[in-house]
Amino acid sequence: MAEENKGLGDLICTYDTAADEAMGKRESHTPRIEAPDVVKADEAFEIKVSVGPHPNKVEHSIRWIEVYFREEGRDFNPLVLARVAFTPAYSEPKVALWLNLRKSGTIFALQYCNVHGLWSAEKDVGVE
Amino acid sequence: MAEENKGLGDLICTYDTAADEAMGKRESHTPRIEAPDVVKADEAFEIKVSVGPHPNKVEHSIRWIEVYFREEGRDFNPLVLARVAFTPAYSEPKVALWLNLRKSGTIFALQYCNVHGLWSAEKDVGVE
Amino acid sequence: MAEENKGLGDLICTYDTAADEAMGKRESHTPRIEAPDVVKADEAFEIKVSVGPHPNKVEHSIRWIEVYFREEGRDFNPLVLARVAFTPAYSEPKVALWLNLRKSGTIFALQYCNVHGLWSAEKDVGVE
Amino acid sequence: MAEENKGLGDLICTYDTAADEAMGKRESHTPRIEAPDVVKADEAFEIKVSVGPHPNKVEHSIRWIEVYFREEGRDFNPLVLARVAFTPAYSEPKVALWLNLRKSGTIFALQYCNVHGLWSAEKDVGVE
Repeated sequence: MAEENKGLGDLICTYDTAADEAMGKRESHTPRIEAPDVVKADEAFEIKVSVGPHPNKVEHSIRWIEVYFREEGRDFNPLVLARVAFTPAYSEPKVALWLNLRKSGTIFALQYCNVHGLWSAEKDVGVE
Repeated sequence: MAEENKGLGDLICTYDTAADEAMGKRESHTPRIEAPDVVKADEAFEIKVSVGPHPNKVEHSIRWIEVYFREEGRDFNPLVLARVAFTPAYSEPKVALWLNLRKSGTIFALQYCNVHGLWSAEKDVGVE
Repeated sequence: MAEENKGLGDLICTYDTAADEAMGKRESHTPRIEAPDVVKADEAFEIKVSVGPHPNKVEHSIRWIEVYFREEGRDFNPLVLARVAFTPAYSEPKVALWLNLRKSGTIFALQYCNVHGLWSAEKDVGVE
Repeated sequence: MAEENKGLGDLICTYDTAADEAMGKRESHTPRIEAPDVVKADEAFEIKVSVGPHPNKVEHSIRWIEVYFREEGRDFNPLVLARVAFTPAYSEPKVALWLNLRKSGTIFALQYCNVHGLWSAEKDVGVE
């Protein structure tokens, strides 16, 4: 698909779909999600999202990370669960958050590098 | 494509790709972008992005609008140009911004409704 | 008051309270608020907030503008009405928003320059 | 000081300055900052900021937490180090971040409750 025909969603890179120039940026740009495979309904659990090693300077850094959720059985997805904006040099592109889920689904982490664009990763979490 | 196989980018609705339940939400959720067709390089121009008519209550509203840009000839797109977060009831999902472009490309507006998810629209802008 | 004893609120500069090094930064950093003196209850009105002229480069720019409101008779103020984040070079530190008020009060604009800190300005708006 | 004469900075509550109605909200609204007393220059350390116990519903929750820094010897303070926005019910008002400092100073956490306003707390961190 020629880039000029891509919609915004098509511009989000993932480890598996990265092509051309993006291939060499996969290791340094794909978010890592650490979360349990199974959690209890409405009981807060910790999730950690990080990116890198990656430069962390004002002219090139991971500007922010967003956490989305695709909830099973929900008509309209995704839900935004949190958004974290970083300051170059002063804050690392790494965050721990505490989430509450009621239904199983897929957590997405989306990060934005001001030079290399949008990158996402996902992890399924079961709720019992 | 079954929803459970969709990546985050696939979850962004547009007027043309909305299907099933989303069909009836297209008019009230697709961002409207008002911008010139052609602008001068590095000369600020006004862009207006709005959504609705749409409910504007704490339990259901357009939470934010982001403006992205796919710059022609750039290896990694998109660029984030601005992000606007609204407060239910107090601020309308409508914003005017002033942008500077150096190269032609496509402006994307992305909005998030906390009930009906992510919706985007796009507009080409030529730089001369 | 020695800076080491200042709380976060004391670090917000205004045109009238700027002292020492901040004196020379008042014209380029105090937000300008354009809004009507009187509006009708629950009828959207336009407000424009801008800063500058000011550098707009990745290493020095107005990063964001927030709009707050102190509503008359409310026990706890302020309310956040909107937040706008800019991208250096690509978006100007200027925004138009459409607000709905139900009671008279004071609108505050707060801006953050990554080199020169937080600056606020205010404007009273009557609701009839 | 009558509220109508307060600037935006004066509206930020702290545990020590909360008065009148705010007195009873101090325990549930003052941010807790967990950070080392002393860190090494340019070596990332963890900081945890949390608020509550506090309601976490769409009509009443801690909407966001910001982390600021007043760096010793810097002409213009504060610096924004990070900003975290939460989703009612789905994310707890608690976050861990990893910061890098080069000079000693004071970390401020600022949180916004959509019903009870802005609350800040601070912690000194020495850099050796």
